[in-house]
Amino acid sequence: MRTFILLFQCHDRKGIVAKISDFILKHQGNIVTADQHSTDPQGGYFFIRVEFILDQDQYAKKDLISAFSPIGKEFGADWNFYDKSESLRMGIFVSEPDHCLVDLLYLWNAGELRVKIPFVLSNYEKHRKAVTGCNIPFYYVPANKDNRRESELLAYAAGSTDFLVLARYMLVLSPDFLKKYNQDIINIHHGFLPFFKGADPAGRALAEGVKVIGSTAHFVSNRLDEGPIIAQEVEHVSHKDNREELIRKGRNLEKKALAAAVSSYIDYRIIKHENKTIVF
Amino acid sequence: MRTFILLFQCHDRKGIVAKISDFILKHQGNIVTADQHSTDPQGGYFFIRVEFILDQDQYAKKDLISAFSPIGKEFGADWNFYDKSESLRMGIFVSEPDHCLVDLLYLWNAGELRVKIPFVLSNYEKHRKAVTGCNIPFYYVPANKDNRRESELLAYAAGSTDFLVLARYMLVLSPDFLKKYNQDIINIHHGFLPFFKGADPAGRALAEGVKVIGSTAHFVSNRLDEGPIIAQEVEHVSHKDNREELIRKGRNLEKKALAAAVSSYIDYRIIKHENKTIVF
Amino acid sequence: MRTFILLFQCHDRKGIVAKISDFILKHQGNIVTADQHSTDPQGGYFFIRVEFILDQDQYAKKDLISAFSPIGKEFGADWNFYDKSESLRMGIFVSEPDHCLVDLLYLWNAGELRVKIPFVLSNYEKHRKAVTGCNIPFYYVPANKDNRRESELLAYAAGSTDFLVLARYMLVLSPDFLKKYNQDIINIHHGFLPFFKGADPAGRALAEGVKVIGSTAHFVSNRLDEGPIIAQEVEHVSHKDNREELIRKGRNLEKKALAAAVSSYIDYRIIKHENKTIVF
Amino acid sequence: MRTFILLFQCHDRKGIVAKISDFILKHQGNIVTADQHSTDPQGGYFFIRVEFILDQDQYAKKDLISAFSPIGKEFGADWNFYDKSESLRMGIFVSEPDHCLVDLLYLWNAGELRVKIPFVLSNYEKHRKAVTGCNIPFYYVPANKDNRRESELLAYAAGSTDFLVLARYMLVLSPDFLKKYNQDIINIHHGFLPFFKGADPAGRALAEGVKVIGSTAHFVSNRLDEGPIIAQEVEHVSHKDNREELIRKGRNLEKKALAAAVSSYIDYRIIKHENKTIVF
Repeated sequence: MRTFILLFQCHDRKGIVAKISDFILKHQGNIVTADQHSTDPQGGYFFIRVEFILDQDQYAKKDLISAFSPIGKEFGADWNFYDKSESLRMGIFVSEPDHCLVDLLYLWNAGELRVKIPFVLSNYEKHRKAVTGCNIPFYYVPANKDNRRESELLAYAAGSTDFLVLARYMLVLSPDFLKKYNQDIINIHHGFLPFFKGADPAGRALAEGVKVIGSTAHFVSNRLDEGPIIAQEVEHVSHKDNREELIRKGRNLEKKALAAAVSSYIDYRIIKHENKTIVF
Repeated sequence: MRTFILLFQCHDRKGIVAKISDFILKHQGNIVTADQHSTDPQGGYFFIRVEFILDQDQYAKKDLISAFSPIGKEFGADWNFYDKSESLRMGIFVSEPDHCLVDLLYLWNAGELRVKIPFVLSNYEKHRKAVTGCNIPFYYVPANKDNRRESELLAYAAGSTDFLVLARYMLVLSPDFLKKYNQDIINIHHGFLPFFKGADPAGRALAEGVKVIGSTAHFVSNRLDEGPIIAQEVEHVSHKDNREELIRKGRNLEKKALAAAVSSYIDYRIIKHENKTIVF
Repeated sequence: MRTFILLFQCHDRKGIVAKISDFILKHQGNIVTADQHSTDPQGGYFFIRVEFILDQDQYAKKDLISAFSPIGKEFGADWNFYDKSESLRMGIFVSEPDHCLVDLLYLWNAGELRVKIPFVLSNYEKHRKAVTGCNIPFYYVPANKDNRRESELLAYAAGSTDFLVLARYMLVLSPDFLKKYNQDIINIHHGFLPFFKGADPAGRALAEGVKVIGSTAHFVSNRLDEGPIIAQEVEHVSHKDNREELIRKGRNLEKKALAAAVSSYIDYRIIKHENKTIVF
Repeated sequence: MRTFILLFQCHDRKGIVAKISDFILKHQGNIVTADQHSTDPQGGYFFIRVEFILDQDQYAKKDLISAFSPIGKEFGADWNFYDKSESLRMGIFVSEPDHCLVDLLYLWNAGELRVKIPFVLSNYEKHRKAVTGCNIPFYYVPANKDNRRESELLAYAAGSTDFLVLARYMLVLSPDFLKKYNQDIINIHHGFLPFFKGADPAGRALAEGVKVIGSTAHFVSNRLDEGPIIAQEVEHVSHKDNREELIRKGRNLEKKALAAAVSSYIDYRIIKHENKTIVF
């Protein structure tokens, strides 16, 4: 028994679900779960995620893709099939703060993240022990603002990964890197995007006297701290929270938002559309 | 253009979605949204809610029901179609506390609850002004523990309502009433069901020193404070919360859980299954 | 038995609490609750709110003020006493949306807001019935962007109120009005201040694909949508939330944040300091 | 400069705060923060936590205790002083599940838990690497239901620890152990106490169709899953959450509640009173 996932988006019109479910039925499949969304049934956009199991071993992912192509063409759709038994390969970049890294490694060890981790790369040597202790290769690349060493980064990431996670990687990746890597990159930002893009969120929170702080996991686009938002987490704060406490709460929010985003991504529950995400 | 909703449940097997979506397509319908759930794709139970629009005025609800019957029979399903333009008729029973009543009336006035309210019935005369001020008939029935006057309640409710809401109605309805009324009744309970069934939640919270309080909206079954749970709301409390403050917070939780449950119900987003609910 | 409240702030130094508690003891008072906060015990700022009861009827508020003056002077403090039995007078300004108004009126009717409401003033006639039904005077002032009629507003508010609440009042009050009124004004804003100051939060949320929305209750200062933040409320949203649903959720957040802010204010639990608030 | 904390409780009466703050002033101390609570100013109980700094090195904890004794006696109080620079010694007992253990170790490594950990003790050998990797001694004691080996547990814990944390330790400690250990023990329970005491919370949640799950950190008393509640955490669930997902969410709630409880305890922010806690 194998589980497959179809992610599909196109301009809305009649008969999409009928066509897709008929396709699955004809391949002796049984739908486990299906989520769909329509921005507007009249002239809007349609999104669907279907998870289904095939009884027999006779169809592989490539068979499904090949058989589905005419349907995709008919609807002018953007679509793909995924085999749930094939784990994605997630490369991790991290700078000094380790809270997100440690959280991801724990979840991975606990079997909560069904993903392969080909490496953790850092411009801080100090994470080596935590990483290699999980039997994951650790690459130290002493990148900094003056020398981002992007060709080294790319040499590690390209080919060996399906996507990257910036688990508090403090150097901005250049448009050139993004273009050459050309796969998804998930970043965790220490504030509410799109409204808070700056640095030092704890300092700003203190200065402005806000009563709520937040964090945002998002796909990386060409501009710093932009790109489709995947998950946001929030927590109430008060005058009692000093700088240290705000930083501590912020770390928890970052862990929570990043873990949620990664979890959605590797379960193929995210569809990107324009500058937004549908997260089923 | 008319919007219809299909609620459907049966033992899981292949081809259900294909059959349903094909049915909708053949009636020139366009699926607006569909939610489904399967307890276990192998031998479990399957639930689906489909909301779809029909371009033309040629099919009424009864046509759909008639045409769908063979499909329902084929799957041994429990199902029904609903016409979104037909509002349900919601009768409200209320005793002394008015917070849930006032909240429902406000939401109804604001157009957030698409429902008809044929009457509000109370064993407290004092709500008359608030109710009649909304142009809703108010019935005063001086029921109490010694005389529940259920035949009067039934005379008002039967026939004129599609379901009842007990918006803090403090008298238990007898199995005989439930049997004769024979439609859904939604109750709001001042604690976490199924674990807290007793009275005086504020007193208990104080005595036990809990750090969280809750409320539960549920369907009424034959036993007091049982029946499928629809919505639960929670809030943190501390030693600072005295009896008065706990009661105030409890009222907010009751309003929130009841409004959520009623809203789900009138949008046909609830499927009952055994002693549980699927709330899409 | 009478309950008094002292709000007090000054540069931090030794002996403040000792002096204040000794003062209360010498007046035969018993401290019911005391909250204090220090931004930094070395050279920072100190804030305290003390609620205490006096056994005998021999001291009035003015006696306490007079007796405390030397202490206030000694510490260079900003302070005041409040008599809990004297309710503040809260004037309400409201434009078309009525959700905050109705919520405040309900809480007031239910005894949850110990405050006097000398009037509700609106540039929409339609709220008259809801307001006068609570036996509160309603003033209709047809202000609009071209003619804000601030002298009329001031004629109603000055003298008869201790503070104003802008419960979705859509016209900006001029610096001249603020100067002449010269008392606190609490506003409810439909977004996260200080980061989201613009209009149409639902539209922005849709356009940006945010996963969290918020609202902010704050004191009004000379600049639009600035001034010390009192309370902020947040809620998760998703791609499923259309414009209508975002607006509905936003209304709930506005009600919640404004009710919390007003409740804190009338219980004398807010101390303003620079552009921030301490909310005990 | 040294920071001390006073925890104090007694029957409420006039002059307590004056006496305490005067005592601190006379020792040249400056109050950093003070929290107090009164169950009822007339005949109730009074609680206070005062954190203060002493300028000079002339007073040690024992000096303060000695000097304060007459005051404690005068009010018939239960009180103690704590020196913030002296970390408590926290022994950890853990069975098979490691999520709480790993979380505590991470927080400890990150400097968020100012505590000494003299050992981690488990009836599962498998945690050795994680524990010794933090340079903490690991004791393997193969206790089970038939042989709880409590004399061994006691030999490790007595003398070397100030309190114990049961970070998912699945064997009930006997009244005899509790009596001999005679110090605080904090347990994490996988449900809402006092209402849900049983086993298999995920199974119960599924069977009952609840919409909220919770966890409780509490002090251990003589009866299983009783004892004063310190912290409770909650999360919404739905029909979508299968057994695996409920367990995952439950683990997060357990981590959160236990970390909060431990953090409060080691900062001396908890006062026990009867069967409840005041958590400042």
